[in-house]
Amino acid sequence: MAGASTATATATADDARPAGTGRRRGRPSTPVLSQEAITRVTLRLITRRGYEAFTLAALAKELHVSVSALYNHAASKQQVLLWAQDAINATIDTGPFATLPWDEALASWARSYRDAYADVTPLIPVMAVLPVSDAPGSLAMYETVVAALVEAGWSGGEAVNAVVAVESFVFGSALDTAAPAEIFDVSEDAAPVFAAAVADRHRRYGRGAATADAAFDLGLDALLAGLRARHGSGA
Amino acid sequence: MAGASTATATATADDARPAGTGRRRGRPSTPVLSQEAITRVTLRLITRRGYEAFTLAALAKELHVSVSALYNHAASKQQVLLWAQDAINATIDTGPFATLPWDEALASWARSYRDAYADVTPLIPVMAVLPVSDAPGSLAMYETVVAALVEAGWSGGEAVNAVVAVESFVFGSALDTAAPAEIFDVSEDAAPVFAAAVADRHRRYGRGAATADAAFDLGLDALLAGLRARHGSGA
Repeated sequence: MAGASTATATATADDARPAGTGRRRGRPSTPVLSQEAITRVTLRLITRRGYEAFTLAALAKELHVSVSALYNHAASKQQVLLWAQDAINATIDTGPFATLPWDEALASWARSYRDAYADVTPLIPVMAVLPVSDAPGSLAMYETVVAALVEAGWSGGEAVNAVVAVESFVFGSALDTAAPAEIFDVSEDAAPVFAAAVADRHRRYGRGAATADAAFDLGLDALLAGLRARHGSGA
Repeated sequence: MAGASTATATATADDARPAGTGRRRGRPSTPVLSQEAITRVTLRLITRRGYEAFTLAALAKELHVSVSALYNHAASKQQVLLWAQDAINATIDTGPFATLPWDEALASWARSYRDAYADVTPLIPVMAVLPVSDAPGSLAMYETVVAALVEAGWSGGEAVNAVVAVESFVFGSALDTAAPAEIFDVSEDAAPVFAAAVADRHRRYGRGAATADAAFDLGLDALLAGLRARHGSGA
């Protein structure tokens, strides 16, 4: 990743092309690539078309460059995905760890984390298994979160386990936001108690996103209450 | 799905071909397809090659039939995936709901659920959004689980939310079982507290699957403790 730009968004409308000024006269108009442009177009492609359709060839085409030009910047699809993960993780808010008690900060972080991945659900299975070592934004996030838990008295190992457990719930909950509103629509003949319970859920919470939020809120409250009890008992 | 076989595994070695007896003399040796054979080969293909490589054309090839023959049985890729989901969900053990208190049964179910999906992690994003209405095995599972919670005093809507919350944790945890052992290997320079915490985690729990289990155990205990507290307070 040496030399790759980590600048934040300063892009032109066309993402990969320079702004048009400052280009040396007579020089061929080769698009200027950067980690930042590659990452932004990667996320756009995956959000629009899904991870299945995402290839380096498709990415090069969208960037208006050749695949070989792309390889001059990114060593592999894995590297591009690491950049994408890092860019998403950099949007997750860890600010509350500086001011709130660990459990409230962890809950706030989990909400921000779910929001970040709800937009890129096709990437979740990929993101969940990417090493964090070459991703400075992800690393900074883990350092902040784990340091807050250790500061609050958690042992290092249990702090990491707690973070992974919350992340697992967050990834699954982000996937649930993509579920169709009718996912549990069933006939009373086939499953009477379940059908009645689903109807009760819709009466209380509405349909679609609201039901996903209700399940997330219940689960997050429960998970945090349980972690708080574990911590209080001297984890 | 009318007329599709729901028989359990009674397959020949070749999955899709009949056993060789009972075929009318002189009749061309067209392979005999069934929902059960299609489902088994679907799961095998996805486990081996990932969901990305799974197409109806690849499935037909593996079944030694034409794509049009496949379409005589399955209306769409969506239908094939529903069969796959139903087959996986049918392996999840709901037995404990008949004998154990709701919280212990829910924990046992979550463990069985995670095990079932840890083998097919490429399918998790697909499975998490598939409607359950045409999947009798999935429906029977939800009916059993929700009925046990309602019987224990949960309201219908909150019972469904609790089940979705546990499922979200299960899906994320199943994805975590696929994470490489070195996912959190980082230098102390880059993230000193996090690196030390990860080292402590490895000292306590080993590496790889053992760390995924430790995070799952902690999270499941916490989630259940929190749901128990919520239930006790009159949910």
